[in-house]
Amino acid sequence: MTNTTLLNRRNSLFGKGSTLFYEKPVQLVRGEGVSIYDESGRRYVDLYNNVPCVGHCHPHFVESVSRQLNTLNVHSRYLHQSILDYADRLINTHHESIESVIFSCTGTEANEIALQMARMVTGGRGIVCTNATYHGNSVEVSKLTLPKDNRGEVRSIPFPETYRTDADDPKEHFLRELQSVIDSFREDGIPFAGMLVCPILANEGLPNIPEGYMKAAVKLIHQAGGVFIADEVQAGLCRTGLWWGYELMDFVPDIVTMGKPLGGGIPLAATAASTEVTEMFRRQTRYFNTCASSPVQAAAGNAVLDVIEQENLHENVTTVGQFLHERFLQIQAKHKSIGDVRGHGLFRGLEFVTDSKSKAPDKQSAVRVVNELKDRGFLTGNAGAYDNVLKVRPPLVFSKIDAEEFLGALEQTLEHLDA
Amino acid sequence: MTNTTLLNRRNSLFGKGSTLFYEKPVQLVRGEGVSIYDESGRRYVDLYNNVPCVGHCHPHFVESVSRQLNTLNVHSRYLHQSILDYADRLINTHHESIESVIFSCTGTEANEIALQMARMVTGGRGIVCTNATYHGNSVEVSKLTLPKDNRGEVRSIPFPETYRTDADDPKEHFLRELQSVIDSFREDGIPFAGMLVCPILANEGLPNIPEGYMKAAVKLIHQAGGVFIADEVQAGLCRTGLWWGYELMDFVPDIVTMGKPLGGGIPLAATAASTEVTEMFRRQTRYFNTCASSPVQAAAGNAVLDVIEQENLHENVTTVGQFLHERFLQIQAKHKSIGDVRGHGLFRGLEFVTDSKSKAPDKQSAVRVVNELKDRGFLTGNAGAYDNVLKVRPPLVFSKIDAEEFLGALEQTLEHLDA
Repeated sequence: MTNTTLLNRRNSLFGKGSTLFYEKPVQLVRGEGVSIYDESGRRYVDLYNNVPCVGHCHPHFVESVSRQLNTLNVHSRYLHQSILDYADRLINTHHESIESVIFSCTGTEANEIALQMARMVTGGRGIVCTNATYHGNSVEVSKLTLPKDNRGEVRSIPFPETYRTDADDPKEHFLRELQSVIDSFREDGIPFAGMLVCPILANEGLPNIPEGYMKAAVKLIHQAGGVFIADEVQAGLCRTGLWWGYELMDFVPDIVTMGKPLGGGIPLAATAASTEVTEMFRRQTRYFNTCASSPVQAAAGNAVLDVIEQENLHENVTTVGQFLHERFLQIQAKHKSIGDVRGHGLFRGLEFVTDSKSKAPDKQSAVRVVNELKDRGFLTGNAGAYDNVLKVRPPLVFSKIDAEEFLGALEQTLEHLDA
Repeated sequence: MTNTTLLNRRNSLFGKGSTLFYEKPVQLVRGEGVSIYDESGRRYVDLYNNVPCVGHCHPHFVESVSRQLNTLNVHSRYLHQSILDYADRLINTHHESIESVIFSCTGTEANEIALQMARMVTGGRGIVCTNATYHGNSVEVSKLTLPKDNRGEVRSIPFPETYRTDADDPKEHFLRELQSVIDSFREDGIPFAGMLVCPILANEGLPNIPEGYMKAAVKLIHQAGGVFIADEVQAGLCRTGLWWGYELMDFVPDIVTMGKPLGGGIPLAATAASTEVTEMFRRQTRYFNTCASSPVQAAAGNAVLDVIEQENLHENVTTVGQFLHERFLQIQAKHKSIGDVRGHGLFRGLEFVTDSKSKAPDKQSAVRVVNELKDRGFLTGNAGAYDNVLKVRPPLVFSKIDAEEFLGALEQTLEHLDA
């Protein structure tokens, strides 16, 4: 079917307003590794998708999940070995204080559990998030998406960064902002529950977080009687070259939520914490999730971990990520429109500005680059607090050769933009 | 691994308190059709699971999903044909007023969307549910699970039934109860949003709903300015012999939520409504769900519909369901412990009472029967407002021969209970 036909059918069947990428949306029919193909057989290089983290249609992943689909797939009120093997393995990638896990199907569900845990453990209600975040789409979790005012149970802090702030000591500045929101809960008689953030502030636009900020923030949260929740849905599972974003940022959270890449495309999410926290939640809720903790989730999760380990993806992410970063810096030197180059591992951001002095966000250029890159065969996106950051987040198997190919197209696109 | 080892590992990895079936839990390793096998190779007949609705590991389902996993699996911000084909097909099983659909991953997420839709469309907040229900595990949806008092935004009505009530006209009695809760919102200044119920009141214990109750309830809800949400997660997709529980109960809901069997084990849920309602929700939320509306969800959903159609499961459900019902009535005549026999299609309930006159619920006997049936090789469960209803809900491919086998074991178990 033509794209126009599909678009019309989509508007009719999904209702107008369901989100689509690119000015002229792309129809996809087949994927393999970092390549995706449209209906005409045209190849696109995928620099966006973190769910098929081991590459599209990885043979080991496909085979493992297919075999399990053909063997057994039931809910978790029976005993089954492989989901326990997977839980064990997942927990072992974490800090020793993370002892047990509750599986669910989506990042939203994982954060639903984490928020409930934080409130049960502390007896508090107040939650701190940043002012440019997204942690999920349920009624409760979406309270963290741009809270309108700072008077309710969910209150936001300016996200910590070093690019736009004019503070002499950004770390201390943003910690004071955090402390002032913590204090505001006390002043308003709202008992404090904790903080929920992405360790690398992915939706905020991957800012450079002042060194030591996260560790110090954990301390402030604990001093106020709260718990610290790290949302690793985007930051985790080798994305930065380490298992978890909190390792890179040198802190230890009380609760960790995981999603997206975990199941490689099979809906799989997890909330992990100490035994004490998990058991308090189990006792108080009798939580059950029909399609979670299933043998097929286990097969998917185990296959993803297999590939990450067997193909040394940690090393690939670090090497190729560093290569990209160095080349991005060279490119930045040639193009004034790129105000900042940031990120970690295979999660990079180029921030577009109208002017390098005023640093005024230039969403228009970012959108134009994203659309031109698509026309050249490279799928990226734009994100960040001002939607002006080119988001480069390919599957973890993205190679140096893939990177070279992309960098060529990026340079052409930027030259076109400057022309 | 032995069951003891698995149980200890589970308590350690999931935290004590994660729910398990049966006094001595069963370890499952393989499934085929209505059969599941434990680690020793022992066969169990599955009379509980509605997710693998076309039978465990159905070859067409396994093949379709595996093929798609090996072809493409991406999120929905690209165009893809098969998810639209599936949406079209799913909508066509519904009443003509149901025009468009929003896919998600779990029944909880589907109900999250439905509650938001109801509140957006009406501008109201007040939601009516029954006093013995469950619609999901998120913070918002779990407000419908046994609301503690009837003073908040979610208020419950006594679920309509004909077994225990002493009302002369149960229909009118329960409608008055509903109207009084609707009125209570108005009295308390809470604008009304609507009602969310399972059309066959599955969790309430599959009571006989007074004839015409649902249609009249829809009218009261509409008169009060609210919308009517049918949660078809348990009642729907051919479970009763018709596509949807609301057809059986002879009413038309404004919003329908679907889950569990929809994806046959691949997490897949849906919220369907008129175009007007869906587009209002799209506009106000920009809803996106990473693993939903994916090609693999489409493959799973389409394969389930294929099997239901190709194997005439509607007919099987009706025929075998009726056979079970008639034999249950015969069995009831021989055993005073069975106070009532109820249900539809392949969803049946036997209600255990200590005494047929007082009708005092006998949870203990139900639990004993469930455990003895398990020991005899038949997997069932107990449910209902008093946990005293033997829940018989096999995959839709359950045959008359399977039924005969089960009925034999049930009679032996009941004789043992009476002894």
